[in-house]
This record gives sequence, C-alpha cells and structure tokens, in this order.
Amino acid sequence: MKIDINSDMGESFGHFKVGNDRELMKYITSANVACGFHAGDPKTLHQTILFAKEMGVAVGAHPGFYDVRGFGRKGIIVSPEEIYYDVLYQLGAIKAFTDVHQVRLQHVKPHGALYNMAHKDLELSQAIVNAIYDFDKNLIVFGIDGGKLLQAAKEKGLRIAREFFVDRTYQNDGSLTPRTKENAYVYDPNEAAERVVRLIKEKRVQATDGTWVIMDADTLCVHGDGEHALTLAKAVYDRLIAEQIELIPIGKSIVG
Amino acid sequence: MKIDINSDMGESFGHFKVGNDRELMKYITSANVACGFHAGDPKTLHQTILFAKEMGVAVGAHPGFYDVRGFGRKGIIVSPEEIYYDVLYQLGAIKAFTDVHQVRLQHVKPHGALYNMAHKDLELSQAIVNAIYDFDKNLIVFGIDGGKLLQAAKEKGLRIAREFFVDRTYQNDGSLTPRTKENAYVYDPNEAAERVVRLIKEKRVQATDGTWVIMDADTLCVHGDGEHALTLAKAVYDRLIAEQIELIPIGKSIVG
Amino acid sequence: MKIDINSDMGESFGHFKVGNDRELMKYITSANVACGFHAGDPKTLHQTILFAKEMGVAVGAHPGFYDVRGFGRKGIIVSPEEIYYDVLYQLGAIKAFTDVHQVRLQHVKPHGALYNMAHKDLELSQAIVNAIYDFDKNLIVFGIDGGKLLQAAKEKGLRIAREFFVDRTYQNDGSLTPRTKENAYVYDPNEAAERVVRLIKEKRVQATDGTWVIMDADTLCVHGDGEHALTLAKAVYDRLIAEQIELIPIGKSIVG
Amino acid sequence: MKIDINSDMGESFGHFKVGNDRELMKYITSANVACGFHAGDPKTLHQTILFAKEMGVAVGAHPGFYDVRGFGRKGIIVSPEEIYYDVLYQLGAIKAFTDVHQVRLQHVKPHGALYNMAHKDLELSQAIVNAIYDFDKNLIVFGIDGGKLLQAAKEKGLRIAREFFVDRTYQNDGSLTPRTKENAYVYDPNEAAERVVRLIKEKRVQATDGTWVIMDADTLCVHGDGEHALTLAKAVYDRLIAEQIELIPIGKSIVG
Repeated sequence: MKIDINSDMGESFGHFKVGNDRELMKYITSANVACGFHAGDPKTLHQTILFAKEMGVAVGAHPGFYDVRGFGRKGIIVSPEEIYYDVLYQLGAIKAFTDVHQVRLQHVKPHGALYNMAHKDLELSQAIVNAIYDFDKNLIVFGIDGGKLLQAAKEKGLRIAREFFVDRTYQNDGSLTPRTKENAYVYDPNEAAERVVRLIKEKRVQATDGTWVIMDADTLCVHGDGEHALTLAKAVYDRLIAEQIELIPIGKSIVG
Repeated sequence: MKIDINSDMGESFGHFKVGNDRELMKYITSANVACGFHAGDPKTLHQTILFAKEMGVAVGAHPGFYDVRGFGRKGIIVSPEEIYYDVLYQLGAIKAFTDVHQVRLQHVKPHGALYNMAHKDLELSQAIVNAIYDFDKNLIVFGIDGGKLLQAAKEKGLRIAREFFVDRTYQNDGSLTPRTKENAYVYDPNEAAERVVRLIKEKRVQATDGTWVIMDADTLCVHGDGEHALTLAKAVYDRLIAEQIELIPIGKSIVG
Repeated sequence: MKIDINSDMGESFGHFKVGNDRELMKYITSANVACGFHAGDPKTLHQTILFAKEMGVAVGAHPGFYDVRGFGRKGIIVSPEEIYYDVLYQLGAIKAFTDVHQVRLQHVKPHGALYNMAHKDLELSQAIVNAIYDFDKNLIVFGIDGGKLLQAAKEKGLRIAREFFVDRTYQNDGSLTPRTKENAYVYDPNEAAERVVRLIKEKRVQATDGTWVIMDADTLCVHGDGEHALTLAKAVYDRLIAEQIELIPIGKSIVG
Repeated sequence: MKIDINSDMGESFGHFKVGNDRELMKYITSANVACGFHAGDPKTLHQTILFAKEMGVAVGAHPGFYDVRGFGRKGIIVSPEEIYYDVLYQLGAIKAFTDVHQVRLQHVKPHGALYNMAHKDLELSQAIVNAIYDFDKNLIVFGIDGGKLLQAAKEKGLRIAREFFVDRTYQNDGSLTPRTKENAYVYDPNEAAERVVRLIKEKRVQATDGTWVIMDADTLCVHGDGEHALTLAKAVYDRLIAEQIELIPIGKSIVG
C-alpha cells in the first residue's frame, strides 16, 4: 500500500510571508507550488523548488487567478479562453525554475477559487486541461473525484490523481460537507489519521450521517497554515509510517 | 549583405491597447515580445507570437521590471539576485507560448529601464545573462555595443547582437546622443534610411559633430508607437529592399 | 426642459492611454472619473479633474473593482463588507483631488461589472450606498431606473439620477436589450439624437418591438471610446442645443 | 516632560498578514497607517483606524511607493510631480476612513524607500510636502532632524516632529549609523530604554565612538515586526511610565 501527500507551498509574496513550508515539507511527498498570479514571486518559486528538491518532495504547479490581493480565493468571472492563457503562462513560469533545478514538473493543481469553480464547470475545466495538455502531456491533474476537472482531464487522456482532504468530512453521497456546515472539519489529529488509514486500507470513509461510503484516493491534501494544521499533518504522516503505508510522490507510483 | 530589424511588440495589457503590431510586423524580422511584467498579458503573448509566426518574424523575449503602471520605464533599485529570478520567470512564461506555437525563442532584449540600467551596470547585466544562460544557452542577447550587457553576455559565452537605433543620433565617441539633447533624434525617414544604408555598406555613421564614426550593427531597432514611427520603419524597410540588402532574423544569420 | 449628459473619463493608467477625454468633454456636463482601482492613476485623476473644471463639467466618482488588468469589467465575487471599504477608499482618493482643485464632488457612478452586479444585487448596492452615505450625504447616485442600486440609494435617503443610454435600445418592459442581442445598439447618430429628444419632450422611448414605453431620465450616458462614439455624442449634443434643451450638470438641477 | 511614540501599523494586505498591531498598539501614542500603495488594503485601513481610536492612539498617514510586491522598500526613480500625485491620492484615501471614524488625521510619515530618498532629496521632499500642504495644512510631518524632508516642511510652514529610532545607534555627527555596520542596532531592551530616558531628560545620546552628542526628538520610532521588537517597545514604554514621562500623541503637545 502506498499514498501521496500534497500541500500548497511557496505562497509568500515579496515581503509578505505565508505558511511554514520548511516544517510542513517533512510530512508531504508532493508540493503544489504557487506560480505568481495569486502568490509566489519568482524568488519564492526558486527557493521553494530548491527546498523541495533537497527534501525529496515532488513539484507541481499551483496556478491561480491573477489576483494577489484576493490570494486567488475570490471567484472571478473569466472566459475559458483567458483561463487557458493564464494557466499556460503560469506553467511556463514554474517550468523555468524546475528546469534550472533539474527537477521534473510532476502535476498541476489549480488554486483556490479556480479549483472550486473548475470542479463544477466543465468548460472552465476543459480550458485548464487544454493548457496543461498543450504544455506537457505527462503532467498529472489533481482534483476531486466525480468533478468536472478530473472528467475533462480523463477525456483529454491526461493522468489524474483523486484528492482526499484530511481535515474535511464527507457526506453520504461522497461529496465534501460544505464549509458552512458545523461538522465540515475534522479537528482531531488522531481521528484524521484514523480516517486516512481506513480510506487507504478499506477504501471507505465514514460520512457525517454515520454511514460508510466507498471511496478511494491517490493523494491526501494537507494544509500548513497555522499550528494546528501542522500538528494534523504530522499526525497523519506518523500514523501512515507506523502502518507501513509507503509515502511516495504520485508521479512515481502511477503508470504513464 | 544582410541585416535584422527588431521592434518591441505585444505591449498591450488587458483592456489597454498599445502599439500597432499588425502594421509594424510587416517591416521587421525580429519581435521583442513583452512577457507580462511591464506589459503583455498572457492572451496578448499568445496572439503576438501567433501573428509573428504567420508573418515569418522571429520571436524574442522582452523582459522588464515588475511594474505595469510604470510600463517598466522607471528605474527600480533591485538586487541582481532578484533580477535573475524575475528574468528567469519571464523567460519561462514566454517559452510556454512559443512552444505551443512551435516557434523557436530566438533572443532576449531587456526592456526599458532594465535595458538602460544593465547597459551601465555589470553586476545587473551578469544577473540577466545568468538567467538567460541557465534557461537556454542558444538565446541571443540584444544590446548596445560597448555596454555592460553585451560584455557580460560575451564573457558567459552567449551569442550577441549589437543594436543600431534608426531614430537616434550618435556622438563622435560612438555613444547615443542623450535624449535630453535637441539633436538626439532622427526625424526624417529618408535621412534615417540613408544612415542605415551607410551603416550596413560602409560600416560608419555620421556623428552629431559631423565626423564619421566607425560602427557596425547586427540588428536595427525601430519603434512602432505613433504614425511617424511607422512611416520611419517603412522608409527604412523599403530602402533596404531597394538596396538589395537581405532582411533576415538574426538567429538565421549568425553562427551558433 | 433640461438634461445632464455623463460619460466615463480619466481611464488612462500610467503609460496606457484610454479614451478621448479632451474631445468628448465638449459634449457632456458630468464626468465619471476613474478612481484608481480599475483605471485612473493619481496623475490622470489630477489632470482629468483640472480639465473638467476648465470645461465647466461637473465631477463624479467612478469607483470600480480592484482589477486593472480586467479594467473592472470582470465580475468578482466579493463580500458587501469589502465593497464598502473599497468604495470608501476610492471616494476619499478622488476627493483629495477635487478639494485641491476646489471642485465639488457631485455624484457617484459605479463602474463596469460593479455597476452591473449592483443593479441586480440589493445587498451589494446597500454596501455601495452605505459607503457613499458615510462619506458624503450630498452625493448623487447614478443608476438604472428600477434597479437595486437606485432602490438602495432612495431607501438611504440619497438623491439619485436615472440614466438613459443613448447608444442602447430598450425592451417593452423598459429594460435594456441585452448586449448579446443583435438589436441592442443604436448606431445611427441621428436616430440616437431623435430618441433622446423624444425621451426628454415626450417621456417615452420606442422599444425594440415597436411599442412605446413610458420612460424618464435625469442624465444621458454617452461613451467616448472610438470615433463612432464621439460622433454619436456630438450628434446628441448638437440636437439638444438645437432643440433648446438646457444642458446642465445634474447637481445644479435637482433639489438637495 | 513628555514624548510621543510612533510605529508603523496596518501593513497587512488582503490575505497577507503583517505585524502585531493589536499588541504593539498598547505601547505607542501615534500610528503610521499604511495607505494602500505599499501595503494596507481598504479593509485593513478601516480596522486599524478603528482599533487606534479604541486604544486612544493618534492616526497618521504612512504613504509609500506604488509597489506591493516590494513593500515600498525599493528605491524607484520617480518624478517629483508623480510623487505629489501619489501622496495626495493616499492622503485622500486614508482621510475617508478617519472621517468615517470621526478621528483626526494627525501626521504624515513617508514609508520605506520614499522616506529614505526624501531624507536626502530636497526636490522629492518638496513634492511630498506640497501634497501634504495642499491637502491639509494642519498635518505634522515626521522625519529625521537635519534631513531634507523636515527642511522642506519647515520652509513650507508645516509643523514637524523629529524622530528618534529606539533600536538604532547614532554616529558622533548625530546621524544614524548605516545599517550595513555591525553596531547599527540596539538589541538590549534595557539599553534602549536607558538611551531614550537620557535623550528626553538630558537631550543627548551616546554615539558609537563613546562621545555624547546633543540631540532632541519629538517622537520615538519603535517597530513591531518580530517578538524582539515587541519586547523592546514594551521595555521603552514601561521605563518611560516609570520615569513619569508623559506619553502623549504629538498632535496634542505641539502648538499649531
């Protein structure tokens, strides 16, 4: 048994520092690196990829909306055509740094509002996927199982990785519990770790109504902002090690 | 006899339209394409490169300072390290589009204040050149003969192209007449064309004091902003054709 | 009989020039001046207000989304709270310049996507209106009759001005014909002028289905981008002068 | 005996959080609030001024260069004319928020590179001072004694406040020890507090060469970034209270 663990990285911008990359990098296998549009200036890109390389963490692109002030978290009504160009631009930008560090660019995970909007919008997802496809057909697309992004990626023939969110609960139809609901989050590190083990070993997760839902995932998403998030990431990591589940970047475990 | 003619292109930004690329592209052989930091959003990058390809014009990167409001024309005090990252980022970004259009990225010409500052600052020039070198050793560096940028490029082993400015006059030491002086510009299209022909055939230019200065150049820089600039570019182009001087992108005429 | 004519002004940004303010200013009585978020840098603000003062044109604020690249034309999903702050900020900014020029700030017209979204969203409109109210209770709010923006303004006790778009057609329920429809625009300058005269003298407009709709307006909106727009603005202006309809800034004609 | 203590505040930007305003606000009497160009979005402006009001801290403007990524710390070569417009814009913007909170805008302290450049450049200082003067003649200008900014302010007839930096050492000519020198900083909180007491009571400071330099100041500048800075600010505050030196915003202690 094996699994990938991914987290957002390199989201500082100029003087503004975000996250705890150096600590969190210990507990993950794939880094989603910001590409400059919502965060992640060129110097940060350079340093983040260098550090990932040193830590043996695989590097992916984390393109977002062109909106530093909103950190890419605000929905912006854009044409699919424009998103194609914006994603292509960001892929090229990060590739310059992975090339310089002689690191392979492994995957693409859209950021924030772009990720959320793509999940529900096939046309937007196709624009993102077309940019990825035209840029590099070997890139793996990260997304939520059953959503439009992974649908578009599969239709285009790209490899995909289904994400499981370690700090979120799921409903009995397999969808994420909306953030507005009280029981949307998993706060207890041990509970989170336990859920992850069940997911990997038994291919199921307990929904908010107590029923068990069949589920599978290729990569676990953990967050790094805040002390608690780090604790949770570490708990999941330690438990997976203890369970002898292999932690390995997704690009090394799925067939091309 | 042969010569390259270059001009800045793709400097629109979102709703803001700049230049007359479609018309000017008829009279040049190499386009310096803005990369998004001082101008040139991803959609404009895409369209400009596509149009250059259709017109048989070679494509180069035109990286600038991260300053849309100032259009990259304001001097900004930055560390060489930061400029390395900023140039590398922009090279990667434009490369995504040349790759998609299956066009070779031919050259790099820093934009505006970055170009002017690099001309006089070896350390800054080395940072720019290192980024170019680390990104792609086949790129040709555009600059002013005798300046620090070309010095740094030559020391690094990169190919260079010496620019001649068709709308500017030169002093008897071969340097450009400062823009603050009255006689800094050549306004008459026929005079500009005549100067260019002399430069190419006789390897000399008449300085502001009337003396003749020995000079050579690999590429002619023309501008596109304004009706007059276009007239001047056309006059130079027509005259060179009439003189049977071959107009050819620099990348096709210099040895690798 | 009297009417106000308004147009968007001061939408240049740094090196990027937009519009034909100097020419269009001859045919209007109220200028909607960009405040820096979607366009309109401080220097442009200064010059536009100075020019409006010289031409006897009243000055209003034209606040937009914080999005220069999108020119404020992209819908952005923001909280009403944030829009309150963003509008307040822009009002303060423009007020510094009207104060320095000893010009009264007359009105507020939200720009682009903010205008369109507010028209249909009461909560968003209330945020805008609250910012205006908290800043200066004498400001007049421009909007479309029957929309949420004017509803919120009236409920708050602010004065309003109903806009009529001289280059647009209306449907038989008095609403604007959507831009996606072929017959959305009035292209003929004489026809536009004729429609405006009917509106002012007869309080009615002929809808796209040929029926006449009762309508009234306090201010006519004209555009300045492009040669045609200028021709249309001039035609409307000349016809109103010929019809001896008084052209007067809205702030001078409605009771406080 | 009395003194003012000032610190930079409100330098968060969107998702990016900077500083520890809530804690530091306890130990100061005047807040230099970022105005949106180098940091400080409208929401942060609103909240910072509200919090200052609640804490009895006076509010000043902290205008900077238009450069969020560089946090206003990079030197930018701008014309005095442009700086006039940029400062005026920022003053208007912050004034909208002080007006809404019914707080008086007390002072202006240019930020970062703008502060450092103005200190040495009379023409730049005059542009800043003219903007302040044209906006509100009652504003107090913060600067370094003997520098061009205070010179320009005095020549224009504006009130000034001379700053003393509690974490910096001085040379025997009264100038700040350059940051590049090893002994540029005062790290020990007790030593810093002791130096401040000597300054206020004895009007002198011990220079890096051991000699005593006659010096006076109207306001003490403390920083908030980092745990150490906070400790130092608290030590100075506590010592001044213990010494029965009155801590009072500069606007309440100097004659208009």
